[in-house]
Amino acid sequence: MYCVYGDIFSGNCYKIKLLLELLQIEHEWKHVDILAGETHTEQFLAKNQNAKIPVLQIDDSTCLSESNAILNFLAEGSSFLPDHGIERARVLQWQFFEQYSHEPYIAVARYINKYLGMPKDREAEYHAKQVGGHKALQVMEHQLEKTPFLAGTSPTIADISLFAYTQVAHEGGFDLSGYPEILRWMENIKSLPNYVSMTGSND
Amino acid sequence: MYCVYGDIFSGNCYKIKLLLELLQIEHEWKHVDILAGETHTEQFLAKNQNAKIPVLQIDDSTCLSESNAILNFLAEGSSFLPDHGIERARVLQWQFFEQYSHEPYIAVARYINKYLGMPKDREAEYHAKQVGGHKALQVMEHQLEKTPFLAGTSPTIADISLFAYTQVAHEGGFDLSGYPEILRWMENIKSLPNYVSMTGSND
Repeated sequence: MYCVYGDIFSGNCYKIKLLLELLQIEHEWKHVDILAGETHTEQFLAKNQNAKIPVLQIDDSTCLSESNAILNFLAEGSSFLPDHGIERARVLQWQFFEQYSHEPYIAVARYINKYLGMPKDREAEYHAKQVGGHKALQVMEHQLEKTPFLAGTSPTIADISLFAYTQVAHEGGFDLSGYPEILRWMENIKSLPNYVSMTGSND
Repeated sequence: MYCVYGDIFSGNCYKIKLLLELLQIEHEWKHVDILAGETHTEQFLAKNQNAKIPVLQIDDSTCLSESNAILNFLAEGSSFLPDHGIERARVLQWQFFEQYSHEPYIAVARYINKYLGMPKDREAEYHAKQVGGHKALQVMEHQLEKTPFLAGTSPTIADISLFAYTQVAHEGGFDLSGYPEILRWMENIKSLPNYVSMTGSND
């Protein structure tokens, strides 16, 4: 059985939880406390030398890290990942967009505000993150004006990747009311069979 | 025929050039000048709303962006991308590592030093980038002590992704002499048939 090392309130970890539930894949979840240094123990570094969660333990000697790589591994053969060609590459395009142009702004602004309590010495950084975050949201909105989901007509792991931090963007100071297509898209994801929220409920 | 919009001295664009040459795929290369605002024209935004290079034009109406998504698309069916399973996911693990834990440090330090000429107001950022960059290099070195290439015994697009900015890391102030396995690995990549350097030569 798969074992996930993660923190459900980290968007990167929640992505894995959401896909596992949508696909009804049995798994064990082991909570890892980053702030307590649990990603820097010798035991954890043997699973991921880069000292980050989530990590998927596949068997005794095989671990996989990077949330989006894990999603690709788990979604293989399912409707959430096209088999090949441009359709499959388009999913990756959105996932790399997420890690480079979305997460470093929206997730970091949320971290500064929600977890660090907006310390004075990071206020300027927080405000700078708003610009990049809104730029990313505009790129998503533009796509969602054209297609129901990011990579086309049906939900894929590209949507799961971008849903994770977009749904909690308000905790980073982002007002989504100016993005009607993103709001519509989030509702569509929440209504997928077996959807689970960050807090573990089904609403 | 594929057309690539890019700047060969951008590591993200060079990745595409290198794979196209290694696979001997015919293509046209159209230079895009970022500093002249060429990624923000209406025509370019129609190709990539995120205003970034590289972009791969596949046909009149189909473009693909994000360097690592393009590599996956082009490498499909070749020896540079395993067909499925953990081997394929491992390649993605390294590519997401590249975009989140390597490029934002090493490529940005290079940009501040080489392209901006180390302006006073970005000196602190430059020095901060050194820490994250060396952390990424250590993660690579650790893997390359165990396997000849990042994802195992043969070269994949994971190596191409990480080679792009690692080979010019010295331009961002990173001394690689403390990383013997990375130096050995770079030589192995340079000796691949049809290798081409950033400057277009074969050495």
